Amino acid sequence: MKKKAVVSLGHQALGYTTMEQRDAVQITAKALADLAAAGYQLTITHSNGPQVSMIHKAMTELRRVYTDYTPAPMCVCSAMSQGYVGYDIQNSLRAELLSRGISQTVSTILTQVTVDPYDEAFYEPTKIIGRYMSKEDAEVEIKKGNYVVEEPGKGFRRAVAAPTPINIVEIDAIRTLSDAGQIVIACGGGGIPVIEQNHILKGASAVIEKDAIAGKLAGDLKADRLIILTSVPNVYRNFGTDSEEPIETLTIAEASAYIEERQFGEGNMLPKIEAAIDYLKAYPEGSVLITSLDRVSAALKGKAGTVIRS
Amino acid sequence: MKKKAVVSLGHQALGYTTMEQRDAVQITAKALADLAAAGYQLTITHSNGPQVSMIHKAMTELRRVYTDYTPAPMCVCSAMSQGYVGYDIQNSLRAELLSRGISQTVSTILTQVTVDPYDEAFYEPTKIIGRYMSKEDAEVEIKKGNYVVEEPGKGFRRAVAAPTPINIVEIDAIRTLSDAGQIVIACGGGGIPVIEQNHILKGASAVIEKDAIAGKLAGDLKADRLIILTSVPNVYRNFGTDSEEPIETLTIAEASAYIEERQFGEGNMLPKIEAAIDYLKAYPEGSVLITSLDRVSAALKGKAGTVIRS
Repeated sequence: MKKKAVVSLGHQALGYTTMEQRDAVQITAKALADLAAAGYQLTITHSNGPQVSMIHKAMTELRRVYTDYTPAPMCVCSAMSQGYVGYDIQNSLRAELLSRGISQTVSTILTQVTVDPYDEAFYEPTKIIGRYMSKEDAEVEIKKGNYVVEEPGKGFRRAVAAPTPINIVEIDAIRTLSDAGQIVIACGGGGIPVIEQNHILKGASAVIEKDAIAGKLAGDLKADRLIILTSVPNVYRNFGTDSEEPIETLTIAEASAYIEERQFGEGNMLPKIEAAIDYLKAYPEGSVLITSLDRVSAALKGKAGTVIRS
Repeated sequence: MKKKAVVSLGHQALGYTTMEQRDAVQITAKALADLAAAGYQLTITHSNGPQVSMIHKAMTELRRVYTDYTPAPMCVCSAMSQGYVGYDIQNSLRAELLSRGISQTVSTILTQVTVDPYDEAFYEPTKIIGRYMSKEDAEVEIKKGNYVVEEPGKGFRRAVAAPTPINIVEIDAIRTLSDAGQIVIACGGGGIPVIEQNHILKGASAVIEKDAIAGKLAGDLKADRLIILTSVPNVYRNFGTDSEEPIETLTIAEASAYIEERQFGEGNMLPKIEAAIDYLKAYPEGSVLITSLDRVSAALKGKAGTVIRS
């Protein structure tokens, strides 16, 4: 019986443009194939910030030229981005596995995640998305009902709510494929956030943290391991200072104490540690590995990465 | 044990713009829910012509404004369209089923289909895509290596090859979900056509007929029924003439004889009949129903539609 792992890929695994993504996924596929070759049965989630932003801009430009087209809400752009990113990841991974003599079905499941319309996150959106805007453009956004924050000296950016994920709508499909020993790409970009109203799922103006959904997914699947691949090889104590020190292992209690000390960057390492804790509380038998794409192989030998256990 | 059905949806089931699609899928969902309520376990395929064309145009306009973005090949646009269309179909169907007290997982699987690079279809592309172009635009397309046909008095249009589908790459995932009693949306737009070269799947400049892939999928799944929903309630003899007559039942032999007589419109009813025959040859125990979205309920009572058996 293989060990189940949920792998969360950050945006360095994908790049920004169609060509960057096509190149980046080759490297990502090698790390994923290392995990598969080490006996992990994978379920893969990924970020989609740059991708959904690209598609949203494209759909906006489309309407400037072809005025008979209607707007594409963020939920629709997000659905498109899951198809786009899943396509590149599944193909590069399939090719990499086949080149190592491993034949395993890899597929992508379009995924939605319900959120609570009364989630506190909606009252003060904190997740910054998109590029810097001028004051004029910011005012247009505010008139549309969107939330904008100013970064002094830099400009204005849109902010959306990052509510807590409640249920992965397609979890049965993901679990069925995972239980059949297949590799699944799911919950891309954190999943499309939706609010359930009388049986109908409505796209919410929000973003679900990809690490939060990776933790939720790992808990739901009772995965043996949650593997968060990011831009640094370890979690650090005193990150970015002279006394910076990589951490090899952490318990929930230790991690919680570090959170109290504000050791982890908001919107950066903090959501990863929080996702790790949520997963370990849901499935105490599990373990979490946080490392970078290029250190996966070393981490599997215990030579890199930070391991968190309950 | 439920009867398995593969349902093929034409573009009237989806409309052309984001808003048209959101409305159209409500009606489509009722027909699909009628089938589910009648005891069919559904796997759904759909066309994506207008959707992939919209996305391709959007990605082209994006690059006019934001020149740092790289082109999106047709295979990438097709992957996006599968996410986009699947999202709307699965949500409208889920809501319609829940409103009837039926709780069944509905999900969308990104699907690719291999084709033979030496398929005769590549030598003379016949599948017309996109809008009419001027002579100048047509010459630009030809320089890019694309195939263009002139429709006298109307203008120029792009034509791509419609090769025979060989293998559905994600068939194991589709079959696993179908065997688990779940509703699956797969092979959207005929599936992304790919050519396999040394383990790598490369997007092909082609379109797979959605009816052809529906027939292939129904055969692969050994579905009890292939249901093709189109714009007419029946298959007709002498269609569009004074002696037009709806056909209630057909055998493969009768259908083949009608094909010889050129009874069925090319690029219209003909590919549906050919898909029906291919499926029945692969799975002779099955049956095919061809009818319109609004006649599904009547067809289930034997009061509409054309049934084809081996």
